[in-house]
Amino acid sequence: MNYCSNCGSNQLVFEIPEGDNRARYMCQQCNTIHYQNPKLVVGCLPVYEDKILICRRAIAPCYGLWNLPAGYLENEETVEEGAIRETWEEANTQVEVIKLHCIYNLPHINQVYLHFLAKLKNPYFSCGSESLEVKLFEEKDIPWNHLAFSSSKFALKKYIQFKENFPGVHIGTFNEL
Amino acid sequence: MNYCSNCGSNQLVFEIPEGDNRARYMCQQCNTIHYQNPKLVVGCLPVYEDKILICRRAIAPCYGLWNLPAGYLENEETVEEGAIRETWEEANTQVEVIKLHCIYNLPHINQVYLHFLAKLKNPYFSCGSESLEVKLFEEKDIPWNHLAFSSSKFALKKYIQFKENFPGVHIGTFNEL
Repeated sequence: MNYCSNCGSNQLVFEIPEGDNRARYMCQQCNTIHYQNPKLVVGCLPVYEDKILICRRAIAPCYGLWNLPAGYLENEETVEEGAIRETWEEANTQVEVIKLHCIYNLPHINQVYLHFLAKLKNPYFSCGSESLEVKLFEEKDIPWNHLAFSSSKFALKKYIQFKENFPGVHIGTFNEL
Repeated sequence: MNYCSNCGSNQLVFEIPEGDNRARYMCQQCNTIHYQNPKLVVGCLPVYEDKILICRRAIAPCYGLWNLPAGYLENEETVEEGAIRETWEEANTQVEVIKLHCIYNLPHINQVYLHFLAKLKNPYFSCGSESLEVKLFEEKDIPWNHLAFSSSKFALKKYIQFKENFPGVHIGTFNEL
């Protein structure tokens, strides 16, 4: 942040505002405080019969590696809507959300993932514009060494360990995988 | 958003970037796309024996009304850390998180609440700077008509209905209360 998005001034300081307890970007011209907060990433662990749908990324970062469909929650949508939309965008497939499967914290990059367990409504899927390949994997074939992000690894590991029998939601944090 | 926070230009447009499917603020000077996403609000439903701790707000909005301790997740913290911190800041009390209790979507104001069920570590609490009053309520005394936000109402209703016996997480959306 180089300029105030409210008044355009470059008189920004990064200091603790009065009554607060952490540093924020503050404009000395118009006094706007620019709060910055983590982003929510929503996605699915989509299953069909005994297989799991995973996408191979056609975009950076981690181009060419495999990942569960997920992306930033957008304004004006619910977390379930976002997870369904991301699965549609990446794999051209319709899913029904079963339940929240896991939360995964990435505090070092200010992200929180929510992965929903979801069922494909039918066995039809194909590559969205952000995917090189979309495939249903049996457990034994999951490309563990070619997964893009630890969030997918966490979601897949917990699913395989507990299937749908875990009462509650798996919560993890990067470094605790 | 009136000015680009990267280059200070006022040449902003609100249009759909190439390859995207929704409008974003874009700077015509430096080509920065300014993504805006929902914020995560984290809090606790803190219990002690058969009572629930609720705070009366000393800040706007809803000054003077009752609310479960909650606030925006900060950068570099996990959702559990944020929920514990907010409870500490508003009620000067230490809690142990038991489990994720509910998710509550507020798509019209771009917020998602996560409320954790938590136990007070001891019966000591007092007003933080954002609270006028902090009190342990028996179920029959919950001030339903003086609650600040529907997110707290949802969390409290679900807790009273199911206690700790619900397998999973309650998910709700404003308008479905």
